[in-house]
Amino acid sequence: MAGYQVAPLSRLVEQFERLPGIGRKTAQRLAYHVLQLPKKEAENFAQAILDAHEKIHYCSVCCNLTDQELCSVCRNEAREKGVICVVEDPRDVAAFERTHEYSGAYHVLHGVISPLGGIGPDQLKIKELLDRVNRGGVKEVIMATNPTVEGEATAMYLSRLLKPLGIKVTRLAYGIPVGGDLEYADEVTLSRALAGRQEF
Amino acid sequence: MAGYQVAPLSRLVEQFERLPGIGRKTAQRLAYHVLQLPKKEAENFAQAILDAHEKIHYCSVCCNLTDQELCSVCRNEAREKGVICVVEDPRDVAAFERTHEYSGAYHVLHGVISPLGGIGPDQLKIKELLDRVNRGGVKEVIMATNPTVEGEATAMYLSRLLKPLGIKVTRLAYGIPVGGDLEYADEVTLSRALAGRQEF
Repeated sequence: MAGYQVAPLSRLVEQFERLPGIGRKTAQRLAYHVLQLPKKEAENFAQAILDAHEKIHYCSVCCNLTDQELCSVCRNEAREKGVICVVEDPRDVAAFERTHEYSGAYHVLHGVISPLGGIGPDQLKIKELLDRVNRGGVKEVIMATNPTVEGEATAMYLSRLLKPLGIKVTRLAYGIPVGGDLEYADEVTLSRALAGRQEF
Repeated sequence: MAGYQVAPLSRLVEQFERLPGIGRKTAQRLAYHVLQLPKKEAENFAQAILDAHEKIHYCSVCCNLTDQELCSVCRNEAREKGVICVVEDPRDVAAFERTHEYSGAYHVLHGVISPLGGIGPDQLKIKELLDRVNRGGVKEVIMATNPTVEGEATAMYLSRLLKPLGIKVTRLAYGIPVGGDLEYADEVTLSRALAGRQEF
């Protein structure tokens, strides 16, 4: 194949192949697709990649992604700035925003503490969170890291840092997902749901 | 979500979402991945898209993709130029080249005749094939379109054009795929394999 392949095409295939979850065959299909796009659309695609890199950076308050000084949540006067929901990833912010139920602010850690992965507290946006709390006005910090070992450990670590500052620290509820099936719930989830039962 | 999203990021997500087989979730994952690439790598990605578009065009003989005047097969003096394998797509050429068994030339139609899809003979590289045969020196044309209704019809159409020119026109053999299981072979394949049986 190497002898047959056209250099610019194989370079494009390689680029697609580096993306997560894209194998050789899919990369080839995508590259051929891009090749068949009208020239203008291919230029738009390339420009979108460059733009995303040049224009997007972290919000100076909550470390979420934004193309302005502050992200849209931090800019919004109507949001309750005294409540901060701490998440791992900008995608988690998107997930909360889709609920249309949360009116507080966020703080994006950009990862979780993972000694095996070589990620310590210093690589995360923890200092920024503490600075923010120290500036005052924060009543509650909601831990919304993922329910994994690392996510739990990070939440625990943060709560120990925050509690001495006199802040209310809460955790998202564990339980059966809505629409789920008790029969298929794993033991840990089920016992957490039982422990967290509430009165009607 | 719309209110939350960052414009350059959602533009990039949209671009990925247009690719075949890429849904909303995957497009988001890919866009976030590209965002986290080092700046240099993102630039390489964008450049690869532009390069593929600018530098790749059709080989002036066989209509395969190339970044030069002739593709690597047509440039190769050792290939038997009197035998032409007619395929639908440049990817089919790559498939044949991987066998390392074929030493002839190719002709890429860039599609098949499909009245329902609005593709007639004029949209394909059929005129180029006839010109090539009329220039002389061609002994055999092997039809290697896909074994679909449209592929068959296209092969039939071409063979009717080519036979009057005194050219030997052949078709790839149908049969059981190597490593396949008779039990799971469909009826049409099995009866074709039976009809095409050969002596030991």
